[in-house]
Amino acid sequence: MLLAVDTSTQWLGIAIYDGHMVMAEHAWLSQGHHTIELAPAIEWVLARTQVSIKQLKALGVALGPGSFTSLRIGLAVVKGLALAEKLPVIGIPTLDILAYGQPPDERRLVAVLQAGRGRLAVGDYRYREGRWWAENHPRVLTMDGLIETLHEPVIICGELTAQERQRLARQSGVALVSPAHSMRHPAFLAELAWQRWKKGEVDDVNSLAPLYLHQAEGIPS
Amino acid sequence: MLLAVDTSTQWLGIAIYDGHMVMAEHAWLSQGHHTIELAPAIEWVLARTQVSIKQLKALGVALGPGSFTSLRIGLAVVKGLALAEKLPVIGIPTLDILAYGQPPDERRLVAVLQAGRGRLAVGDYRYREGRWWAENHPRVLTMDGLIETLHEPVIICGELTAQERQRLARQSGVALVSPAHSMRHPAFLAELAWQRWKKGEVDDVNSLAPLYLHQAEGIPS
Repeated sequence: MLLAVDTSTQWLGIAIYDGHMVMAEHAWLSQGHHTIELAPAIEWVLARTQVSIKQLKALGVALGPGSFTSLRIGLAVVKGLALAEKLPVIGIPTLDILAYGQPPDERRLVAVLQAGRGRLAVGDYRYREGRWWAENHPRVLTMDGLIETLHEPVIICGELTAQERQRLARQSGVALVSPAHSMRHPAFLAELAWQRWKKGEVDDVNSLAPLYLHQAEGIPS
Repeated sequence: MLLAVDTSTQWLGIAIYDGHMVMAEHAWLSQGHHTIELAPAIEWVLARTQVSIKQLKALGVALGPGSFTSLRIGLAVVKGLALAEKLPVIGIPTLDILAYGQPPDERRLVAVLQAGRGRLAVGDYRYREGRWWAENHPRVLTMDGLIETLHEPVIICGELTAQERQRLARQSGVALVSPAHSMRHPAFLAELAWQRWKKGEVDDVNSLAPLYLHQAEGIPS
């Protein structure tokens, strides 16, 4: 059994996964109290599915980009669990979770999440050999900046406000993924972490840190 | 704001959706106490996202196939909310939720869910004009019966046990969708219900009933 935790943005996610089945998936737009909400939510999810912490074999965690503070809270809770229960931890770049939910396509995939102050963290992906591959380090862009980069037909998925969706939908060559298909499903994080765990690709719990964006573009929160 | 409820099987789902964003998605493998679990879970989800029942504009509900008893509980809770708050209700066939999560493909899509006593409710879908269309009324099949129907290359998604997954993976011509991509995401139910609501296609609250399978194949629960 693997527990996955994503606190990259206001969109919080928890999943329990056993390799064959998703046992639970809980995700919600938090009202900004990650410290207060996260641990009780994990408890609630475990209780709902009658899974005990002792049954967990590994932990998956979203590494960002996102909000510094909330990423740190998620990672701290996961590290606490790992230390207490001697569990391996697998960190997954947050935009990879979004890409994992998208079907194969010839076009460039642009995955985005809210980076605070109206800015977006943006990653470009290409589909090759059965999966999406990140083409570059995620960038922080304004909506204007993102639109300037759209020279070819692209698919855009991710965390977007109503206004941002409306604006992108007007751009030619943009295929906008629906809100339900744009969700960062914690089950996807869990499955990615499970696959890496099965290959023995676990991270060092002590040195594991959030993926920071370029210093000048850091996202204070 | 739309609230979606799926109690078709042991896999319970709740989502809150506003047309632009999924506000919350909670789904879990219930330990069989739908009557006790459902209403508090709806309350918990609303509280988490600080959405009040008064903000809801419509309700979406999964119609089955599935377990008679649990479908009736879900529908009863939704009808209660609809009566109290005078909300429109949109019923969505449960296997359509699974199909909605799958990418376009030339092959036949087989969507399945647990129908009790080791049997599966099975629906066939074809992709045309931008979406998956049900080809027939869902059937109840044993795993042997399902395998007998697999004469051409197919994609299989849905609720499968570890043993069922292993067995299907050995069949030639079968592309088995991963567990995380096989989930009945309540956000997909919410989005399908939202789309129908926006087109004015609401159901009659009083006469809305679960989709029963052929009498001889009914699923007692």
